Amino acid sequence: MIKYPNGQAFEPVAQLKHEQFVKAKQQKVVFGHRGMALEDEINSSNEYYRNHDTAVVYKKPTPVQIVHVDYPKRAKAVIKEAYFRQPSTTDYNGVYQGRYLDFEAKETKNKRSFPLKNFHQHQIDHFKRCLKQQGICFVLVKFVAWERVFLYPATKLITAWEAQQQGGAKSIQLTEFEHHGYEIKYAIHPILPYIQAVEQLLDYLKESN
Amino acid sequence: MIKYPNGQAFEPVAQLKHEQFVKAKQQKVVFGHRGMALEDEINSSNEYYRNHDTAVVYKKPTPVQIVHVDYPKRAKAVIKEAYFRQPSTTDYNGVYQGRYLDFEAKETKNKRSFPLKNFHQHQIDHFKRCLKQQGICFVLVKFVAWERVFLYPATKLITAWEAQQQGGAKSIQLTEFEHHGYEIKYAIHPILPYIQAVEQLLDYLKESN
Repeated sequence: MIKYPNGQAFEPVAQLKHEQFVKAKQQKVVFGHRGMALEDEINSSNEYYRNHDTAVVYKKPTPVQIVHVDYPKRAKAVIKEAYFRQPSTTDYNGVYQGRYLDFEAKETKNKRSFPLKNFHQHQIDHFKRCLKQQGICFVLVKFVAWERVFLYPATKLITAWEAQQQGGAKSIQLTEFEHHGYEIKYAIHPILPYIQAVEQLLDYLKESN
Repeated sequence: MIKYPNGQAFEPVAQLKHEQFVKAKQQKVVFGHRGMALEDEINSSNEYYRNHDTAVVYKKPTPVQIVHVDYPKRAKAVIKEAYFRQPSTTDYNGVYQGRYLDFEAKETKNKRSFPLKNFHQHQIDHFKRCLKQQGICFVLVKFVAWERVFLYPATKLITAWEAQQQGGAKSIQLTEFEHHGYEIKYAIHPILPYIQAVEQLLDYLKESN
């Protein structure tokens, strides 16, 4: 295990957040969805869905451990020292026609398969708990090279994750997403109409019950 | 409207977060639930519910606008400048037996009534959107002086809120909570068994349909 000089274990999440932060800073104005990060596409679609009473879904704020806050006179409070914390859950949740939705979004530059290392044990555990409560759980996975996005059920992700832990494949093939996921075609209103794929998943769940 | 010297509007949320932060800092080890903040009681109960597969509910992280992050060599990333942001939603959501739960928690030192100024327009708007999606929406309200906690349906809160905007009462009477809310009695496992009150609310909703 990698440790800091103070003996504390290295937290990969800090590095991860670093990359996300740098990426966000580099993000420029884009035309249409080309080059847009999956997160922005989802946030934009969620806003559309909320404004049209289709669904109420939000991305959760990044969890931060606040250590020191300054309260300058006549100005607003400034957080002067804080650290990124490991999230306990997935990034997105909300409600659609009475159903609880819970999902994570990930993108890859790989062309043929999606590395499972993009996910974390805590997300898998959270999915399992939500599934026991009959939540609708899935991941939205984007192959950046092809600009293709799939909704993939959490149940199948868990199967792949557990197979990997027993020495199985370290990634999920694109063909698997094509066969057992639900592709989401980019549109205009909203840009990423993932609720259509949720509907397909709900139909599938009804049939298999 | 109060404005900062730079012309930016004063955000009450910063002050609010200040108070919460100071309160958290002052919080000491307590025995039993006496003097425990409602938020801690709910977080502890949520942990119990998760561990017992009763429900999966989390408090959302405080939203923070990150402006500057330092990445010291061999140490984890430090957020050096950030600001509290106004939340768009309520503080808690999750899933219970297939139902989407969404709620806010507030306490008052008042003895006879609960001031509506404890709530914000964005919370009311969020409740309305979630109710349209058939979410189960409510507030948990604690009268600190009596150590009494009530679950109060969001539909009734919205009615009181809108009456107030038309010149009606600025607070909700304790007797109203007694008559139309569901009291939650403190226990041990979990300390605040609010899911029992959710069950009562679900029964009521079934009957009134």
